Amino acid sequence: MLLNASRAAEIMQDNGLDALVATTPENVLYLGGYWAMSQWVRRGPQAYVMYSRTKAELCIITSTSLLDLVADQNPGGQVRRFSYFRTDVDPSATLSAEDQRQVALFSDREYKGPVDALVAALTDDVGGSARIGIDELGITPQCMEELIQRLPQATFVRSFKLFEKIRAIKTPEEIARLRMACSITERSIDRALDAATEGMTELEMARVFHSTTTSLDGVPVTGCIGFGDRSAMSNVQPSSRQLRRGDVIRFDVGCRYRHYRSDISRIAAVGEPTAKVRDYHNALWLGVQRAHDIAKPGLRVATLFNEVVETVRRNGIPHYERSHVGHGIGIDGYDPPNIAADSSDVLEENMVVCVETPYYELGFAGLQVEDMILITRDGSESLMARDGRLRILAI
Amino acid sequence: MLLNASRAAEIMQDNGLDALVATTPENVLYLGGYWAMSQWVRRGPQAYVMYSRTKAELCIITSTSLLDLVADQNPGGQVRRFSYFRTDVDPSATLSAEDQRQVALFSDREYKGPVDALVAALTDDVGGSARIGIDELGITPQCMEELIQRLPQATFVRSFKLFEKIRAIKTPEEIARLRMACSITERSIDRALDAATEGMTELEMARVFHSTTTSLDGVPVTGCIGFGDRSAMSNVQPSSRQLRRGDVIRFDVGCRYRHYRSDISRIAAVGEPTAKVRDYHNALWLGVQRAHDIAKPGLRVATLFNEVVETVRRNGIPHYERSHVGHGIGIDGYDPPNIAADSSDVLEENMVVCVETPYYELGFAGLQVEDMILITRDGSESLMARDGRLRILAI
Repeated sequence: MLLNASRAAEIMQDNGLDALVATTPENVLYLGGYWAMSQWVRRGPQAYVMYSRTKAELCIITSTSLLDLVADQNPGGQVRRFSYFRTDVDPSATLSAEDQRQVALFSDREYKGPVDALVAALTDDVGGSARIGIDELGITPQCMEELIQRLPQATFVRSFKLFEKIRAIKTPEEIARLRMACSITERSIDRALDAATEGMTELEMARVFHSTTTSLDGVPVTGCIGFGDRSAMSNVQPSSRQLRRGDVIRFDVGCRYRHYRSDISRIAAVGEPTAKVRDYHNALWLGVQRAHDIAKPGLRVATLFNEVVETVRRNGIPHYERSHVGHGIGIDGYDPPNIAADSSDVLEENMVVCVETPYYELGFAGLQVEDMILITRDGSESLMARDGRLRILAI
Repeated sequence: MLLNASRAAEIMQDNGLDALVATTPENVLYLGGYWAMSQWVRRGPQAYVMYSRTKAELCIITSTSLLDLVADQNPGGQVRRFSYFRTDVDPSATLSAEDQRQVALFSDREYKGPVDALVAALTDDVGGSARIGIDELGITPQCMEELIQRLPQATFVRSFKLFEKIRAIKTPEEIARLRMACSITERSIDRALDAATEGMTELEMARVFHSTTTSLDGVPVTGCIGFGDRSAMSNVQPSSRQLRRGDVIRFDVGCRYRHYRSDISRIAAVGEPTAKVRDYHNALWLGVQRAHDIAKPGLRVATLFNEVVETVRRNGIPHYERSHVGHGIGIDGYDPPNIAADSSDVLEENMVVCVETPYYELGFAGLQVEDMILITRDGSESLMARDGRLRILAI
């Protein structure tokens, strides 16, 4: 199960919520275990999951055209469908379990639109005057207006941030997926660096990187791969720039594995690096090492931030400045906590965080170490198979 | 240029709009030529493009942390940035043109948040009491409330649909990208089918498909690849189901090429197909052929829908029913027109449409033909290199 159910119940209670309604792709998947394709690929298509606290019940609200996905994924809970979609059935065939489930789902009532189905679910499960936490970033303004109008006695509380707070502490299934996503990306970096040759373009290296991710059953996501001075662009996108001796190569990359994200950074130098590259990179690496050393439940996130930044400053980049040195990661690339000076969060067991020390200097290079770290009962565990030391390529 | 500027001006005039504001990733890219990474990978991060009709001027509103992308992509127009981000500069280095542009962008005023920057752009370019068309699906409810509060004299008109209407007629650059996206996906299907062997899983075939797309500089997107009875699931996601003699293979797949989408469907049979597969597929193929034959500027979309459905019915599937038989395609997988019975649209030169005749029968199979078609001055042009006839694999 992806959902941290006990944490959800606790946070709903603290906020006096009778129901939670997920509307963004990430929260629909997290709360209901339901991956509703159309909302992942476009803005506009509506799919919701409603969770009622008193009944501890889930209801998926989805377009009829996606019922095959519900049947195939079989996430459990109630389903309410809306809009027309035609699927035929061969009456002479023996149907698979998935197809039998789909036929059963089609036999349920068809609501006119998503709000009709959501209103019915809320009315039946928590009543029309409930206090409802709604993820405000996935529902269209038109649907939100209609919902308020249809349930005039209900109180709606914007809850995207509460969903993030619930997601911050990972379940075992989530941790397993994050481990694999991390491993796929590490291996994709290794393969891309193994393929490095003088004259290879950033685009060609990105192709090796993404193809490796695909071959390992990861789903490619946008990433940064930059050579030489281009590595200093914080969001560098692969171009036709060719690899030359003396370049650094910066990877700030990830993938999705069963919908869960990785986000890691590694630097390689082509040939003997300059003293500045070596020294600066070492300072950044020591900053992340400091996080590995001190991270544990109870540590204030603001303290972690200060320790990492101070370590980098003391070890070679005295002017080092960052707004954050990392973030949680899960179904979204940026879960809480945001590792920043003004954070009031505290590390907790089963958080998974990316700790990163990027340094961008135009005219010089971009250098960066980013590791994924699991907070354990009494400390932390690196999810990385290889450490983040500067790699030197002899090509 | 991606933007159809004359059409935008005309539609703004018809709707009495002084300004248009793009807020979703697709519309920000379309209107401003600016690909703002963070809004593509998550919900929440804000980036806007404002276009003023009277001044015919564009203004990009973006986080400071994305200025390197503005500098690298160099889309033109004004830029207003918000929030703090640190980038260093090597004072001894000779900067590249991209880095010089980034330094110049950093020297501009830093607004506190996205709404501060947008309010400044609107106030300066169209005045505080203008009529403003705003793409309502990318701006957060919080930012939208703040915007209304900050510009109490302005009138805001929800304009996501107007953006879609502008995008319906493609510019030459858009058509070139769509051609390439289509070609990459066709070649990826060919390679995946060439690799077919008995016992291969859907996931393994998907890996060949997506790796080919990556190797051709396409970006993989979620697609449907299903074998045998699984092909009847309308959104079938690749599983560990193995390929067997007698199966059909259904592809409903695409990619992105320079952000533009493809969406095509092809069916293969493993070994000699049954008469039902052959006959039904032929009817579906003739339906799409009918679209190729009659599509031209001036044809009512509702007529196109009826002709396609009737052709399928007359040629072998008398009970064929669909809510639509295709859609426009561009930067989004579903641009107007929606090819449906109730459409009031008319085909116009430089529309690019996907015409599709899917048929899903649980216990039998899913069969589907989907071609990409460009509407030309006096007819249409297929973007497909190979036609959609049933392919028979002798493996």
